[in-house]
Amino acid sequence: MRIALAQVNPTVGDLARNARLVIDRIQEAIAAGARVVAFPELVVSGYPPEDLLLKKHFLVDCADVLRDVARSCTEITALVGVPWSEGDRVYNAAAVLAEGRVAGIYHKGRLPNYAVFDEKRYFTPGGRVLLVYVDDMPLTVDICEDIWDEAAEGLRMAREGGARAVINLSMSPYHAGKGSEREAMLAGRAAQTGMYVCYANGVGGQDELIFDGQSVVFDPQGRLLSRAHQFEEELLVVDMDLAGSEGPPAVKGSQDSGSPEPGWRMEVVRVNSSPSATGTSRNAPSGRVQGPAAATGDKPSGVDSGEPSCIAECLSLEAEVYGALSLGVRDYVHKNLFRHVVLGMSGGIDSALTACIAADALGADNVTAVSMPSRFSSAGTKNDAREIAARLGIDFQEIAIEDVFSAYLQSLASCFDSGSQDVTEQNLQARIRGNLLMALSNKFGWLVLTTGNKSEMAVGYATLYGDMAGGFAVIKDVPKTLVYRLARYRDSLGPGEGPIPVSTIERPPSAELAEDQEDQDVLPEYEILDRIVEAYVERDESVEQIVALGVDRAEVERVVAMIDGNEYKRRQAPPGVRITSKAFGKDRRLPITNRYRG
Amino acid sequence: MRIALAQVNPTVGDLARNARLVIDRIQEAIAAGARVVAFPELVVSGYPPEDLLLKKHFLVDCADVLRDVARSCTEITALVGVPWSEGDRVYNAAAVLAEGRVAGIYHKGRLPNYAVFDEKRYFTPGGRVLLVYVDDMPLTVDICEDIWDEAAEGLRMAREGGARAVINLSMSPYHAGKGSEREAMLAGRAAQTGMYVCYANGVGGQDELIFDGQSVVFDPQGRLLSRAHQFEEELLVVDMDLAGSEGPPAVKGSQDSGSPEPGWRMEVVRVNSSPSATGTSRNAPSGRVQGPAAATGDKPSGVDSGEPSCIAECLSLEAEVYGALSLGVRDYVHKNLFRHVVLGMSGGIDSALTACIAADALGADNVTAVSMPSRFSSAGTKNDAREIAARLGIDFQEIAIEDVFSAYLQSLASCFDSGSQDVTEQNLQARIRGNLLMALSNKFGWLVLTTGNKSEMAVGYATLYGDMAGGFAVIKDVPKTLVYRLARYRDSLGPGEGPIPVSTIERPPSAELAEDQEDQDVLPEYEILDRIVEAYVERDESVEQIVALGVDRAEVERVVAMIDGNEYKRRQAPPGVRITSKAFGKDRRLPITNRYRG
Repeated sequence: MRIALAQVNPTVGDLARNARLVIDRIQEAIAAGARVVAFPELVVSGYPPEDLLLKKHFLVDCADVLRDVARSCTEITALVGVPWSEGDRVYNAAAVLAEGRVAGIYHKGRLPNYAVFDEKRYFTPGGRVLLVYVDDMPLTVDICEDIWDEAAEGLRMAREGGARAVINLSMSPYHAGKGSEREAMLAGRAAQTGMYVCYANGVGGQDELIFDGQSVVFDPQGRLLSRAHQFEEELLVVDMDLAGSEGPPAVKGSQDSGSPEPGWRMEVVRVNSSPSATGTSRNAPSGRVQGPAAATGDKPSGVDSGEPSCIAECLSLEAEVYGALSLGVRDYVHKNLFRHVVLGMSGGIDSALTACIAADALGADNVTAVSMPSRFSSAGTKNDAREIAARLGIDFQEIAIEDVFSAYLQSLASCFDSGSQDVTEQNLQARIRGNLLMALSNKFGWLVLTTGNKSEMAVGYATLYGDMAGGFAVIKDVPKTLVYRLARYRDSLGPGEGPIPVSTIERPPSAELAEDQEDQDVLPEYEILDRIVEAYVERDESVEQIVALGVDRAEVERVVAMIDGNEYKRRQAPPGVRITSKAFGKDRRLPITNRYRG
Repeated sequence: MRIALAQVNPTVGDLARNARLVIDRIQEAIAAGARVVAFPELVVSGYPPEDLLLKKHFLVDCADVLRDVARSCTEITALVGVPWSEGDRVYNAAAVLAEGRVAGIYHKGRLPNYAVFDEKRYFTPGGRVLLVYVDDMPLTVDICEDIWDEAAEGLRMAREGGARAVINLSMSPYHAGKGSEREAMLAGRAAQTGMYVCYANGVGGQDELIFDGQSVVFDPQGRLLSRAHQFEEELLVVDMDLAGSEGPPAVKGSQDSGSPEPGWRMEVVRVNSSPSATGTSRNAPSGRVQGPAAATGDKPSGVDSGEPSCIAECLSLEAEVYGALSLGVRDYVHKNLFRHVVLGMSGGIDSALTACIAADALGADNVTAVSMPSRFSSAGTKNDAREIAARLGIDFQEIAIEDVFSAYLQSLASCFDSGSQDVTEQNLQARIRGNLLMALSNKFGWLVLTTGNKSEMAVGYATLYGDMAGGFAVIKDVPKTLVYRLARYRDSLGPGEGPIPVSTIERPPSAELAEDQEDQDVLPEYEILDRIVEAYVERDESVEQIVALGVDRAEVERVVAMIDGNEYKRRQAPPGVRITSKAFGKDRRLPITNRYRG
């Protein structure tokens, strides 16, 4: 049986566009001779639709769109993710579209409600296993989290019912290395259950989240048959020998979990069960697959058996993260109907990297960099700012902030007792820059990108309404040590020595808001800071645990107090791309009012 | 049996302070002759602790604190809310503290995961009913959402097991009118189950949420026996005639829900079962209850039977909301260790009301109002700003923004092609004001209060990093029409004609950011706008449904597009006090990237 996995990029709430996307790929899959085409989880609504799901009319609109899509499924069976209401209950559903109608519905059984997920806020869990007979060949379908169940209850029932393949519809949020984790799990699930595993993942950026694609098919021995690219749309077409595949006679590894949970039951849907009705297109591919899927051709690009499922041909960490950040920027900008972005360019490494990502993602013509030097800006950084813009070929403007700064100081003089300067005046400079960028944004309709990294966001080494002012925070989940690695990676791509001058990379980091200021005046070395942030933020470790890693106790306590004390700033920060296993944002929900230290 | 409900105000994460609070009230309850004292849900950690619950060491610290508290429970039984881990599972628990130890644990069975709640993110639901024999008298205990279960499964089991009273530990988030809704439910539950209902609610502000107190006791006929005040700490002491109370022989109204869910079981804890051991303090009240509970005395302040449970003696809507806002400001400021606040005072009604609330909540000495007139500020508003500050007795400063504004325009002149002004220059003025307030905040350690109302927040009629800049948004959940009512209410309290001049109330609202500007140039009348906002935001109605209410379709579509299009601004707004059934914030989680319109 030939199956197509449609790795598409839906837009949350744009039901008409999502429907066109699905219908177009159904046509392509038919042209490629596929009998089944699978789409990502909730492709009709986009993922995650969040509180749109609380609007009854939204659910009605999704169902209407689904029925429209169904009409194009006369020669193929499509599995389409959709929010689906039955009475007062709403399900995260996979619709079986065939014979021009909605032939069956599967309800997601396991609803993630941790990390970035809130699915129990919206959905009722399902309790049915669905067997779909396509051309008399039994398949089963499930959704994302379902297949992560180590006990594989549902798959075991399906296998016992005769299913030789599971098709999983996913929108799996990316973090660095997630693809490999996922493939290891999927290979294991295939071998455990003796089924083909067809994993149809979506791709794209949605606010903080990236969906990385990399849809895959594993055979019943757990060997990789085919894999789609990361971060791109693709139609992955694969042939499965379902009749010939026997696999292990029984499901392994789940004996001790007993029988399926009480209440689970099997439902069977048969579509196209008279082969003659659709025989003309069956096994009659119409040539190469068109469009973004061209690279895969119409033959399965199977990897030989026995090869470890991934890693070798995957991207380097830097390439992968850079790809994720680029996709995140592109989708946030375009899906919110912006074309052009503007950012403050100091000549430091954070704004340099952000500019590179923006230029690569959006095209150099769509990026403006603004240098806003003050009395504390060095000639070195000012020159570097200009140089980076020139190498990237992006628009460059310079607005000195000295006059506005002086005007502020004069206006405030009567309120401030003494002439001594402190962090107030530093923040003022950062806020002037924020205001100038927002003025350009207002005047020209540009989106402001902020340039702060995760290490700064963690300890609050940033100015609220200053350098934190903007619509999208490209590298807010990238620790400073990784910023350096990404800068070097980008330079390695060229042209020549790359867009970021060595001086930008090697200069000691400084906010340049006071005389002879360096980040390390108030922060630990970034190597140490990032170790603490990772342990405290991403792994929820205690001060004691971090000290036990070999970090100086005073440093740990100081950094932890800074992290805790700056929750209020992060709450007002723009969203940015999540690339770690725990980003600031909806992934980490701490109270602002919080006296706990430890 | 004499019971004390300790309506206290814990602080999230301040375990030591919360423990002292609990121990002090245990002592007071003993002195008042109570045999049982009940505390709010999760009083040890504060509520909601959010992702603190993901830190294993936090759970260990909570358990340690609980055991410390238990040592003070030798002469009384205390019911104390605490996060409680058993193996990998975490429960929202009620600990029974008696005989100096943790004598029993109840696990909350129903975990809310809607609106502002995320309890399924953290907790495992319980499946046990707990019977606690105190002095051989059986009681049952449950937690918040449990008692909202209309089928009353758990209570029915407890009643059949002999329990004559349920003690419910709550932290019930306030919205206007919530107290009456809650009392109607509790009175019904008492009558339905034939049990005394003792409802121990917490009080205080925590970021967006207000807990309004108003703890109550109902008798088995559903009659109010006693009620604590709203928005204040209190120890409510009530005598229940448990031996004499029979109530209805069977539980009413739950027959059709069948037997309790499979797996629910009964657990029994007996404490102080030898009366002689504690006989000395039993029924021997030590005189009037001390401290904030003085108003209740040591006798139950029972209301005669047959009287409707609430409403009559409750506060007016305006008084209630004003009380909630004041508590919200006071707790946010003090729990975050600020003393003094600063706000921009335009002479308009929003900043006037905010200043009143701040002065009433924090004391006039702790409030600074700053007038920041521009070329567009009228003499009327400038005078009113000064007048309001004078009437409230708060500090007043004036900083003109003209010079800074001119400096910005000059700096930007080279980037802006023409001299024509648009919203850019309006936002610049608002952002200058935001920067000036933040400079005062930085210099003097003051918290900036913002003054925007819910109607503005909804349609984005506010400047990001301008008037939206600040730490706490006092009236962000108050629709403009209610702002007017609250202003008149506050004036009615005096002294004299009150702090807000009639001219401030009667002047057509204007942002004063351009010549002859009025809000109604771009917004519908606030009466209409607020109807749309309430329907669209609070009730999730569609455009069609709102049109059906009799609102002009073009207005509805225009306003809905503004609401949807300004999600990005709201995401960067400071938190504020929730007073409606759906506030902007964690109550309403819409994607920024969202193309759905309807």
